Amino acid sequence: RHLLRPSAYLDSVVLLALQRALAAAPGVEQAAAVMATPANRELLADAGLLPEGLDAARPDDLVVVVAAADEAAAETALGRVDELLAARRGAGGGAAHRPRSLEGALRALPEARWALVSVPGRYAAEAAHRALDAGRHVFLFSDNVPLAEEVALKREAGGRGLLVLGPDCGTAVVAGVGLGFANRVRRGPVGVVAASGTGLQALLCHLDELGTGVSHAIGTGGRDLSAEVGAATALQAIDLLARDEPTRVIVLISKPPAPAVAGRLLAAAVGSGKPVVAWLLGTPPPGRAVGGVHFAVSPADAAALAARLAGASGDEAVAEAVVESPGARPASFDPEATDAMPRIPRVPDREPDAGPRFVRALFGGGTLALQAVAGLQLVCEPLYTNVPLRPGQGLDDPRRSRAHSVIDLGADELTAGRPHPMLDPTLLAERLVEEAGDPQVAVVLFDLVLGDGAHPDPAAVLAPAAAAALERAGREGRELALLALLQGTAGDPQDAEEQAARLEAAGVAVSRGLEDAIGAVWRLLPRSREVAPRAPVPLDALAAPLAAVNLGLEVFHDALLAQGARAVHVDWRPPAGGDEELMALLRRMR
Amino acid sequence: RHLLRPSAYLDSVVLLALQRALAAAPGVEQAAAVMATPANRELLADAGLLPEGLDAARPDDLVVVVAAADEAAAETALGRVDELLAARRGAGGGAAHRPRSLEGALRALPEARWALVSVPGRYAAEAAHRALDAGRHVFLFSDNVPLAEEVALKREAGGRGLLVLGPDCGTAVVAGVGLGFANRVRRGPVGVVAASGTGLQALLCHLDELGTGVSHAIGTGGRDLSAEVGAATALQAIDLLARDEPTRVIVLISKPPAPAVAGRLLAAAVGSGKPVVAWLLGTPPPGRAVGGVHFAVSPADAAALAARLAGASGDEAVAEAVVESPGARPASFDPEATDAMPRIPRVPDREPDAGPRFVRALFGGGTLALQAVAGLQLVCEPLYTNVPLRPGQGLDDPRRSRAHSVIDLGADELTAGRPHPMLDPTLLAERLVEEAGDPQVAVVLFDLVLGDGAHPDPAAVLAPAAAAALERAGREGRELALLALLQGTAGDPQDAEEQAARLEAAGVAVSRGLEDAIGAVWRLLPRSREVAPRAPVPLDALAAPLAAVNLGLEVFHDALLAQGARAVHVDWRPPAGGDEELMALLRRMR
Repeated sequence: RHLLRPSAYLDSVVLLALQRALAAAPGVEQAAAVMATPANRELLADAGLLPEGLDAARPDDLVVVVAAADEAAAETALGRVDELLAARRGAGGGAAHRPRSLEGALRALPEARWALVSVPGRYAAEAAHRALDAGRHVFLFSDNVPLAEEVALKREAGGRGLLVLGPDCGTAVVAGVGLGFANRVRRGPVGVVAASGTGLQALLCHLDELGTGVSHAIGTGGRDLSAEVGAATALQAIDLLARDEPTRVIVLISKPPAPAVAGRLLAAAVGSGKPVVAWLLGTPPPGRAVGGVHFAVSPADAAALAARLAGASGDEAVAEAVVESPGARPASFDPEATDAMPRIPRVPDREPDAGPRFVRALFGGGTLALQAVAGLQLVCEPLYTNVPLRPGQGLDDPRRSRAHSVIDLGADELTAGRPHPMLDPTLLAERLVEEAGDPQVAVVLFDLVLGDGAHPDPAAVLAPAAAAALERAGREGRELALLALLQGTAGDPQDAEEQAARLEAAGVAVSRGLEDAIGAVWRLLPRSREVAPRAPVPLDALAAPLAAVNLGLEVFHDALLAQGARAVHVDWRPPAGGDEELMALLRRMR
Repeated sequence: RHLLRPSAYLDSVVLLALQRALAAAPGVEQAAAVMATPANRELLADAGLLPEGLDAARPDDLVVVVAAADEAAAETALGRVDELLAARRGAGGGAAHRPRSLEGALRALPEARWALVSVPGRYAAEAAHRALDAGRHVFLFSDNVPLAEEVALKREAGGRGLLVLGPDCGTAVVAGVGLGFANRVRRGPVGVVAASGTGLQALLCHLDELGTGVSHAIGTGGRDLSAEVGAATALQAIDLLARDEPTRVIVLISKPPAPAVAGRLLAAAVGSGKPVVAWLLGTPPPGRAVGGVHFAVSPADAAALAARLAGASGDEAVAEAVVESPGARPASFDPEATDAMPRIPRVPDREPDAGPRFVRALFGGGTLALQAVAGLQLVCEPLYTNVPLRPGQGLDDPRRSRAHSVIDLGADELTAGRPHPMLDPTLLAERLVEEAGDPQVAVVLFDLVLGDGAHPDPAAVLAPAAAAALERAGREGRELALLALLQGTAGDPQDAEEQAARLEAAGVAVSRGLEDAIGAVWRLLPRSREVAPRAPVPLDALAAPLAAVNLGLEVFHDALLAQGARAVHVDWRPPAGGDEELMALLRRMR
């Protein structure tokens, strides 16, 4: 049975909720609620759910299909569609006036300086242009916007003194209000320019932990620092933060910018006269402080540097944090184990080709996935990922893990036709169960992101999945550890402590920082046994005064004497007069 | 004219000095002093200097060849060979007893616990085995020792409780005495394990600057952390430093170890119970503190972390240094320019394809070259080097720079048949003049390493070369900046201040840390002009209270309301019913 509603556009989150509610109705075997785009019609056909007579349907028509045990059950379920949609609308507080156009909305709220655009990618540039035409700044969440459209949008915005954050901008904080996915953090001295959504969220969480706050955090979209876009938004953002009085420190987060724009970007940041912290993902920093820029190596580190530079002076805790790293704060990990990784191995040393030995790490965003690759590649080989740092790490099919794997589940190829894992953790939960069922897997690490815009209760989806996975491993006699990286602040609408408690009750170890999580994985992976016993070197190897004999370069003998050491130089000459054959013969005779 | 001394082996430094002295003699046009190996005989033939009747000469025979204006001059020059060699030997304090064998030397100095081996690579393993047989630890400077020989040597040493530092180990400090190339640094709480020679030297210099000191610094050779060698020496060294009471902090320096050994290495270091700092070159750190390891990003940073962890508590300068970076301490750079890179551009902004625009960076060791690549690749494209961090950066012929280039002049292919640039800066001086003569070059950066084992007066060679290069650029009306990275401590036998002063007098800017030097290069390279003028974004973009309209995901509207912002959700639907053709038509009509 199906139902067709012409011109009744619903977003993917609303559609998914509707579909779930229908599927849970009595007697219903399968349910689908989608817009009648050609791609969705194909998906329905693949599932054997494509009703007859849909040929005339248009992409903005809503199609609801139900396969039920009998006619009556299907009828009843379809009859609830309006009721379900109305209930949702009521819950969201959106029962009020709903203008049908951007222009109408701006008439209703003329003081709106911002338009948030998260419509499907093929409509997004058009919507953004209309917002710019109306003189509004644009937060452009939509992805799949062509590069040329981004360049055109930003050129137009730049000429009018307007901002376009995005496309594919997941997170921003303007004047204390999060746009898109954002964690709640107090207002404070740290201004952020970020070409990374989850990286920015991690920074927000760590700043909050340190007790400092954010003036504004301006997302740019991941392509802004490409040579084509030329850091158009990032340069505007730096200029704004330079003039914004409450901003006392500027933090830049991005993958390494194109060299053609990096010089201008770093120069603009330093030229603001405010201290600058840069976290350039996936690249070895050139030093701790170069050209006036303080280089950080992680969100926790960037937060610590920013807090320090913002002049939280006299605050010993913050100064300590620079060395001790706030990211190293354990939540449910055994603190002793965290401090002394090797002394409490969770799994016994053994040959690395026996038993569970691989880690699978699942993230909702590319930034933390990349950081996890940086950490795990040090000890895990072979490592495969859809966010490779080195040649040879690429995963042919991100749906299938191999050996050690790190997966960005927010990547376009994995979210096509489904909401982002932060909106709906079902995809993550399914993958978690799949990885945990692999007998070669010793550790599964996954992230759980809280905040505005994110799912209201991810633990409700993830904790049962984790419990089931651990139960199965136990039944099969397998060693398995599940680790969660929980990113959230005390102010987030979800209760972070309660989310953590439910995961822990399901048997998951919970960390609040990626450093911790990586350290825990290092500790949990089996290491190969020592291959050969070694005789300890006696301490007299290092005893003073030093005495040595020298064969070869005379300058080294002279240097020993010049340092007051005793030394004898050997008047060395090649054995056997340097005759290779004779030398080999002598060696064999020894 | 030539002279053949059978069985009179001399090392490459002594030979070069002899050759220079002969070449400077009156009437002499060309001179060569080499061992009669087949390779050297070929080099002589190429230079047209191969005398007749050398067929019977053996590799340990000394050949001295002189081409002079007349017979008498050649005769006089050759007659001075013994005198020149004796003078050198006298200067080196080596006039005393010179045993002919390792065993003889050990009889003369039985308390020697160490043997330094720097004979040519093909003889080195044999010499090292004999030292192990005699129960001595080996500092093995020689390179070109096969991997299988290294594995065999270290297996033997490990079974006997002996150390083999190397092969290709440039630097160590044992009980306050430098072996090979080493800077003089006070004794103190920092123990080092380093698979990097110049990296270790840079660390020593920065520790000295911070006023802290070194217990022991144990070089391992660059291949020790490979899967084949399995960190044999590094694990012994960590075990030793763990038991060495004066060592309070352990610093590890290396390129990223093979994952198969990294787990054991990091576990062993953390298992020592002492704080651990790791600087893994050319790799993005996984965080600031992971699994009990403090990750540094440069020699200056590693020194600052180690000093801080060694408990230089109450020392505000050190605590500050962690953030402010000791490497950012300018020597002769304009401090204002260092703090505010973009405000004082040395060269005007202009299109990047006009005029001098490239940097050429020349280093005596791979570690600092790699760190320079990490810094310069952020803003320089294309960048070529013989120590690539990314695919595509490889230089076909390291003798020829292209575009932006970073060269490790200590690489085997550049030093074949010549002493290492630290022993003899002539190769560096020649390359400096060559690079500076290229009209596309705006900046030449080079290093000058002091300490025991290094050339006694590198400025005497480098300052005249720099002055000549600058003079030529001035004559040709070219902008050119020369920068030197001076690595040395106050205690080094060369006077570091005086070396710096002579370079500065020649027109060279001198830095004491690589961070500084990279920052200076960033500042000196021309940046392209702004492509289009931008209208500044008014600050009201960031004003509170925030109000916004929302098109797309309803959850973002709900999130705005939940944060107390004003928002209106648009009941958006695809324009033209989602019909692509109609949409395109409407767009064109706008």
